[in-house]
Amino acid sequence: MTVGEQRSFGSYEVTEAEILAFAERYDPQWFHTDPERAREESVFGGLAASGWHTTAMTMRLLVDHHFSEAASYGAVGVDELRWPNPTFPGETLSVTVEVLAKTPSESKPDRGTVRTQLTTANEDGEPKLTMQPIVLYARRDSGE
Amino acid sequence: MTVGEQRSFGSYEVTEAEILAFAERYDPQWFHTDPERAREESVFGGLAASGWHTTAMTMRLLVDHHFSEAASYGAVGVDELRWPNPTFPGETLSVTVEVLAKTPSESKPDRGTVRTQLTTANEDGEPKLTMQPIVLYARRDSGE
Repeated sequence: MTVGEQRSFGSYEVTEAEILAFAERYDPQWFHTDPERAREESVFGGLAASGWHTTAMTMRLLVDHHFSEAASYGAVGVDELRWPNPTFPGETLSVTVEVLAKTPSESKPDRGTVRTQLTTANEDGEPKLTMQPIVLYARRDSGE
Repeated sequence: MTVGEQRSFGSYEVTEAEILAFAERYDPQWFHTDPERAREESVFGGLAASGWHTTAMTMRLLVDHHFSEAASYGAVGVDELRWPNPTFPGETLSVTVEVLAKTPSESKPDRGTVRTQLTTANEDGEPKLTMQPIVLYARRDSGE
């Protein structure tokens, strides 16, 4: 992908069972683990996925549809991670990535970092997660 | 906690079984899912947890030891998330948080945001994850 290029992919069906399983293990707050109380008391209006679960589901979409095993050395980090809306059971998530910048390594010319703007949204285009991952990549001869 | 105050807590034992279970579901890249290949080929020198798994384990430590159910309205987002070192089976993680800034809401004086510098490290103090969560809190009368 070149700078400015955009790509959308994936289709992840969010289930209540998976929301509960993730939250019970990693984020056991009642608005992620108790459907009845969440329906009655949560500001979200119902059981919502842990933000870290939305991030994890996004990672699965990236691995399945976007990463090239040969080319990526893994993520350096992530900037500006936000959860603009909660993720609910029954929604289907997809991911859009746009390349913001490519920076060749000064010490190792065969690699560089790529910064992307990533958005995870539901089937209506409502954004659930936005972030800027910075990933270390092998550079092809073309510099692409 | 007041600005500049620091707090450390928690003790999360990382197992190979949990690394594999998380990675198979959310980050199925071979350096997270194939112990033998990871030992022979990975730049990490062995099976390493998904960075998102390290983040999820950190969240569990926060929920168990740090969050007050009554006071937190959840995270607005996270800035400057980094994984300076991989997380390996057999390590024990703990978390240190330092309050960087508190910003009262201008429209709703009963709440505000708190920005912290968070570090997750192993038993030798080697950092695995650093990030700046921004969390929405209810404000007590004292403004604390």
